Amino acid sequence: MLLLIPGPVQTRPETRAVMAQDIAPWDHDFRPTYAAIRERVRAIAGGIEGVHATLPLQGCGHFIMEAAIRSFVPAGGKLLIAHNGSYADRAVRLAREAGREVVTIPGPDTRPVTAAEVAAALAADPGITHAAIVHHETGSGIVNDPAVIGPVVRAAGRRLILDSVSAFGALPVDLAAHPEVDVVIFTSGKCLEGLPGIGFAVARIDSVEAAAGNAGSWSFDLADVYQHALRAGWGSFRFTPPVQALAAFKVALDLFDAEGGQPARLARYQENMRVLYDGVQALGLTPYLEPRHQGPVIVTVHQPADPAFELQGFVDALKARGVLISNFYNTKVPSFRIGCVGAITPDDMRGAVAAIGGALDDIGVRQREAA
Amino acid sequence: MLLLIPGPVQTRPETRAVMAQDIAPWDHDFRPTYAAIRERVRAIAGGIEGVHATLPLQGCGHFIMEAAIRSFVPAGGKLLIAHNGSYADRAVRLAREAGREVVTIPGPDTRPVTAAEVAAALAADPGITHAAIVHHETGSGIVNDPAVIGPVVRAAGRRLILDSVSAFGALPVDLAAHPEVDVVIFTSGKCLEGLPGIGFAVARIDSVEAAAGNAGSWSFDLADVYQHALRAGWGSFRFTPPVQALAAFKVALDLFDAEGGQPARLARYQENMRVLYDGVQALGLTPYLEPRHQGPVIVTVHQPADPAFELQGFVDALKARGVLISNFYNTKVPSFRIGCVGAITPDDMRGAVAAIGGALDDIGVRQREAA
Repeated sequence: MLLLIPGPVQTRPETRAVMAQDIAPWDHDFRPTYAAIRERVRAIAGGIEGVHATLPLQGCGHFIMEAAIRSFVPAGGKLLIAHNGSYADRAVRLAREAGREVVTIPGPDTRPVTAAEVAAALAADPGITHAAIVHHETGSGIVNDPAVIGPVVRAAGRRLILDSVSAFGALPVDLAAHPEVDVVIFTSGKCLEGLPGIGFAVARIDSVEAAAGNAGSWSFDLADVYQHALRAGWGSFRFTPPVQALAAFKVALDLFDAEGGQPARLARYQENMRVLYDGVQALGLTPYLEPRHQGPVIVTVHQPADPAFELQGFVDALKARGVLISNFYNTKVPSFRIGCVGAITPDDMRGAVAAIGGALDDIGVRQREAA
Repeated sequence: MLLLIPGPVQTRPETRAVMAQDIAPWDHDFRPTYAAIRERVRAIAGGIEGVHATLPLQGCGHFIMEAAIRSFVPAGGKLLIAHNGSYADRAVRLAREAGREVVTIPGPDTRPVTAAEVAAALAADPGITHAAIVHHETGSGIVNDPAVIGPVVRAAGRRLILDSVSAFGALPVDLAAHPEVDVVIFTSGKCLEGLPGIGFAVARIDSVEAAAGNAGSWSFDLADVYQHALRAGWGSFRFTPPVQALAAFKVALDLFDAEGGQPARLARYQENMRVLYDGVQALGLTPYLEPRHQGPVIVTVHQPADPAFELQGFVDALKARGVLISNFYNTKVPSFRIGCVGAITPDDMRGAVAAIGGALDDIGVRQREAA
């Protein structure tokens, strides 16, 4: 079975093989692995030793995003969120339920937020202390570029929270060049091609030290995670981690390096996406995004107009042909989405396009353009 | 290597083998596994269909305990905590950082809290809405019995939160007989002998429905977890889970049933504990607890008086003999602790006692009684 989903992604056999063992997380033999992971992840983020720290947290993307918001946006702070997709919805809900005041820039999920929009929103409300963007919007496939938005946030004297859950490892992040970024967050099971279970924040040490007392939650307090990491001679995870996923992540990072790091991974994913995007068009389907706004992580496709199309039936037919895609969508109009990330190649994508065409035939979908 | 730690525990090869695969959590083929886990876990808790629901949450024991406190203790509510060990410390800190008012019953970690103490504390403060006890205190090894404390809480018209993280599956929990219990929490990687990564709450449905709006955290809102579980035709995990640990947990439950369920597991652990407790005494060491207060999950041992004893050195010497124990302690005085739980047998424990004796010889510890 080929998993074409934006996480948990298809992994390499070497990576998942490591999962099948018992490990004591605080064991001296495991600590160097854990310490090396923290350093390697900081390097991928373009972080600087002594300036940035890697702060891991058990759980999923929601958890590490809530931890980032609670830790960095103080009580009384106000968070601006570029609200252009379902993972921006997530950020809005996480922040509001945590009692943070939220201002949004409403936008369609078919294009990135612009620097001008962010600049105008920041200028209009001096009470805004932080902005947040979703790097890659897993709902539609667009990319909000921190290299474009960051300078505007910096010029306005505000701080940036970057949700890079479904982008990190593929799209570039350069913390050294972006001092306005307090924190970038991501997880083990997406573009770094590990198994799910661990979230990561790479944060400015000065910001995280200043964040002590903000979180209103011990579990989600990144300042406490940082203090824990500093405990002399300790260097273990705070609380029991899904340690098998941590061990597998080490192998995933080895494979990431062997491939050529972020540029090589991005190139493979872009080629995956191009094969898929062109392929679904050739099948008569309508991609959700214009080519210029199409990111390399997922391709969202409008539901075909044919009344014979029903999402779970299509997913089942495709699965019978060896390809598993998500059986839900995150756009306002009906769609389906296909992941371009994980341990998959352009050849896999060519096979997937053929399978999609076959599955549409199997369920009798002739009218394939958008409804 | 024999892992003698109170979680993540040593698992059976059949259980951990399942970890080495990619799984899409929302896949139709996986949902029956997930649904069956929820039902089986409710049954182990003595829950009743239609009255109790299983609410899973990614992460560790801290997370599911914070979620229980935030969800069930409303803003303005006051939580009484039997404060007799380091996992009670955890509950106090989690509750206070979440902004809940906490009243404690201070007590030594060498005996359980008594019904009279709880009754007196509840009578003294009518503002207390909920009480929390740690079922098995992983710091020292004592057991706070919900069958003893529950009736007092019920008689006082209050609600009980049961932290059974290191007990569930071994010590009995009977929710049907204890309507005062709003929620019992536990994790995948302790006495049920799964891999770490997932917390579980089994909660009263009426209580969790009444808890909507309490949490102040979307991630930790058990009322939202319950609503999500109800979504018609869905039945998937809320947010991305460490799905490999979920799949392995199914096998762990099969093995739990095959062993004879909770009574058989408790009997094995009690025998493990007895071999260990008697064995360390025979080596001249001083157990931390009196026999009458010694639970079946861990045996804590006073640090020997001999100046040659140093915890990490002892752990290393023991590891060289094939037994891994925790390299930290959770009591106020120096100690070491040995787990009796996981896929281990009384024969393993006899081997462990011999290894402990050998390791003490290796590092030259002759004075073995408590300092």
